[in-house]
Amino acid sequence: MTAIEEQSDGSFLFTYGDSYLLENGESLVDLELVYETWGELNEDKSNVILLHHALSVGSHASSHNKRNETGWWQEIVGPGKAIDTLKYFVICINNLGSCFGSSSPISIDKTTGEMFRANFPQVSITDMIRSQKILLDDLGIQHVNAIIGNSMGGMLSLSWAIEYPLSAKKIMITSSSYKSYPSNIANRHIQHQVIRMDPQWKQGNYDNNQNLTGFKLARKLGLFSYRNSVEWNRRFNSDQGDDIKGSDITDYIDYNAEKFCHSFDANSYLTLTKAMDLYDVTKDYESIDACFSRVLAKILVVSVESDILYTSQQQKELYSILKKNGADCEYINHHSKYGHDAFLVEKEAFTRHITSFLKS
Amino acid sequence: MTAIEEQSDGSFLFTYGDSYLLENGESLVDLELVYETWGELNEDKSNVILLHHALSVGSHASSHNKRNETGWWQEIVGPGKAIDTLKYFVICINNLGSCFGSSSPISIDKTTGEMFRANFPQVSITDMIRSQKILLDDLGIQHVNAIIGNSMGGMLSLSWAIEYPLSAKKIMITSSSYKSYPSNIANRHIQHQVIRMDPQWKQGNYDNNQNLTGFKLARKLGLFSYRNSVEWNRRFNSDQGDDIKGSDITDYIDYNAEKFCHSFDANSYLTLTKAMDLYDVTKDYESIDACFSRVLAKILVVSVESDILYTSQQQKELYSILKKNGADCEYINHHSKYGHDAFLVEKEAFTRHITSFLKS
Repeated sequence: MTAIEEQSDGSFLFTYGDSYLLENGESLVDLELVYETWGELNEDKSNVILLHHALSVGSHASSHNKRNETGWWQEIVGPGKAIDTLKYFVICINNLGSCFGSSSPISIDKTTGEMFRANFPQVSITDMIRSQKILLDDLGIQHVNAIIGNSMGGMLSLSWAIEYPLSAKKIMITSSSYKSYPSNIANRHIQHQVIRMDPQWKQGNYDNNQNLTGFKLARKLGLFSYRNSVEWNRRFNSDQGDDIKGSDITDYIDYNAEKFCHSFDANSYLTLTKAMDLYDVTKDYESIDACFSRVLAKILVVSVESDILYTSQQQKELYSILKKNGADCEYINHHSKYGHDAFLVEKEAFTRHITSFLKS
Repeated sequence: MTAIEEQSDGSFLFTYGDSYLLENGESLVDLELVYETWGELNEDKSNVILLHHALSVGSHASSHNKRNETGWWQEIVGPGKAIDTLKYFVICINNLGSCFGSSSPISIDKTTGEMFRANFPQVSITDMIRSQKILLDDLGIQHVNAIIGNSMGGMLSLSWAIEYPLSAKKIMITSSSYKSYPSNIANRHIQHQVIRMDPQWKQGNYDNNQNLTGFKLARKLGLFSYRNSVEWNRRFNSDQGDDIKGSDITDYIDYNAEKFCHSFDANSYLTLTKAMDLYDVTKDYESIDACFSRVLAKILVVSVESDILYTSQQQKELYSILKKNGADCEYINHHSKYGHDAFLVEKEAFTRHITSFLKS
């Protein structure tokens, strides 16, 4: 038995009454998903856009009348914006395992009455999209007009294209990939080791998330890879920097890591980044071609030339595999100095890309 | 009173009898430098090549009859090779502060009878070259034919060009820069914090260098930046990798960090990387131009296009400043997939670059 409850901040809490079976064979007794929506669902439910968010954020893509706080895609989602909420019914669901409201390591394990912490099961990208499909079905939404996913969110979007080929007309995947590559795994491997080395970590039973030096350091490593050396040097090296004039880079990354630890749970960070490590969209198929030939949606793959985390090579490879398997697919290699963060920073360019994609 | 003593492995131990005053105002009571040489010094001492080594290595650039072990530039330094030891007298001095024989945190502090450890003074790049100049003077070598420095070694080479303009005819600087840039500082800042978070660290009074998890993690971060994502993915992603077929990247970086901790002292690593943080060759001059207009040697600057640590932008900037100040200067932007490590890996290309540089 499912239930949906509107919360005081305008988000909705979806509860799935049954036991939710995960890919790894474990079950979640009470699956909960938090989501937010913008705009109105039209009568034939044909104006839906599903947003798949990145690692560090949740369902709050943009402000709305019950939550004024700036969202992670504030300048992209709203009335008259690229994702026009006067036209579309936009939904963004906090990923399963993420600590912004959906079932995650900070949820209470009903079987013990305690917080899951490190005992939260290792969810997968597939578990995330299957839980979202249950929610959309519950809302009576069988088909979406478009899915747009960035970074980790792009992994969900691509998985959706393969798992539910008929359910989305168009899918836009930015700064993502179809599997985890060695460089991504190595980067996260070091982060995981840094988190676990911290004496305050206590196997995930830490006393205070805000005191986790290891977690802060892991975040700094992440942050460092979201841009690139040239951009860091341009920004902090001279008075000409356009973002943070005269600031010191070590203060900047220390400050940002500190801030992150006040909102993001370390066990959730481990769960989600491990889900990315385990991600390979082809893993349940006989071959890469058998997997990708399932795709029916029109796909737009966007890479950023200066991205050192999900390199444009990874996305060129995704595009080539899609093309080879007959997908209606386009590719944009976006030239930006902002690396992996470009989709959050380059608002005008992404407004253009999204507008033209939704019109196509 | 200075002394030079040949050691059993064919290296030489230079001892400077006086107190050696450092840039920061502290003194080293017994300055020791270990160096190795190849080839014969000719009568008028005009065939000297001085090598400036990178962070992770010492004076052992190549094998010789008293030490058969492969050196860090084995295929570049030797009879008939690019740095031809039949023609040149090659000298490589272990940098002051480095744990491969010269005065460093693992030396005994004569004033206490104990190992320096974290009490070793913070030496600078300038301290390193000044100590080398004393040694060369002691050997009666006033002028060298060429200086060749890579990475951190390139910082020494450039400092030499400015501090002792008349003492070197030609200087080749590869994968280095004239100051530390924000991206370099941030990378090392995270490494330093990781080292210090380790409960085994004990403010540098650790029991066993090989058990320092934080130091191993710092090394992994370093290693990760010596190549780049595209190269890691090419090498570990497919059966076509030309280096380590089928190996797993996390095993590879774990293994290499483990190995490093068996030879490299963590306090020395902190001292040397901090010396790089503090490095700015212009810092004692009224202006950048006042500094660089001192250069009289012919300079070759070599950058590697895929280097994410010392980006080619940094080296283009160095070249431009040299040119602007009238230096006889050339620049090669080397195209290689091997990033910062290219000078260690691309033996044929660097043989070409060095041969043509020495002939010029």
